[in-house]
Amino acid sequence: MPQNFQIFPVGVVRKKEEATWIEIFEPYGDALLGLEGFSHIQVLFWFHENDTADRRKTLRVHPRKDKKNPLTGVFATHSPLRPNLIGLTICRIKSIKGRHIEIEDIDAADDTPVVDIKCYIPGSTSRSDVRVPDWV
Amino acid sequence: MPQNFQIFPVGVVRKKEEATWIEIFEPYGDALLGLEGFSHIQVLFWFHENDTADRRKTLRVHPRKDKKNPLTGVFATHSPLRPNLIGLTICRIKSIKGRHIEIEDIDAADDTPVVDIKCYIPGSTSRSDVRVPDWV
Repeated sequence: MPQNFQIFPVGVVRKKEEATWIEIFEPYGDALLGLEGFSHIQVLFWFHENDTADRRKTLRVHPRKDKKNPLTGVFATHSPLRPNLIGLTICRIKSIKGRHIEIEDIDAADDTPVVDIKCYIPGSTSRSDVRVPDWV
Repeated sequence: MPQNFQIFPVGVVRKKEEATWIEIFEPYGDALLGLEGFSHIQVLFWFHENDTADRRKTLRVHPRKDKKNPLTGVFATHSPLRPNLIGLTICRIKSIKGRHIEIEDIDAADDTPVVDIKCYIPGSTSRSDVRVPDWV
């Protein structure tokens, strides 16, 4: 297995006053065709502020930075500290104009690099009959 | 913004006879603490068979490889051909033994590199009131 893989920013999160949008970079604009048929997208982004060798070695955290929550492996959390700094969130699309996807909101900061967009398909990307631990 | 980011395999998909599991590599075993509290995980993997510069330039596909489906931008699909070859699926956990997460099933092949595991939290990772196009 290769030691590592390369990923590239395909866009960026933009927040200005009341508006929030994802700007897809010019080389990837053609990948948006048909996205207007969906109400929601999954946005994969990069926790770029944590991209140091040291931070990427963090394997356990107190979820939500709350010491009252039990020390937990990062694979059992959505912590922004993890070996591969991929963040994942679901956003509602407000409009698509050219390479700008206006969204209702996103739990990622302005200027966050976006690495992938996937359509949100219920059933494929959701489950029922789910169990979670107490801290959730 | 940096031109690219590095990601590393943290594990691998294993399929043998009736069993399917994710083997997390030794350096990342500590990241599993507390995962047993969850019934489901989100598995992020790498479509390693498509990791060529040429394939990664594919921006439009016929979804599900069906020519009857309209030509669609890869960001509006879950196609394994996309600029960053990150696959995403939800799996039900059957058991966790050491660094082996036995799962019910996964739509990824044996030997597929795993790049991240996230706990599945309903509400956070699912949505209602969703609209999808006809081809879905």
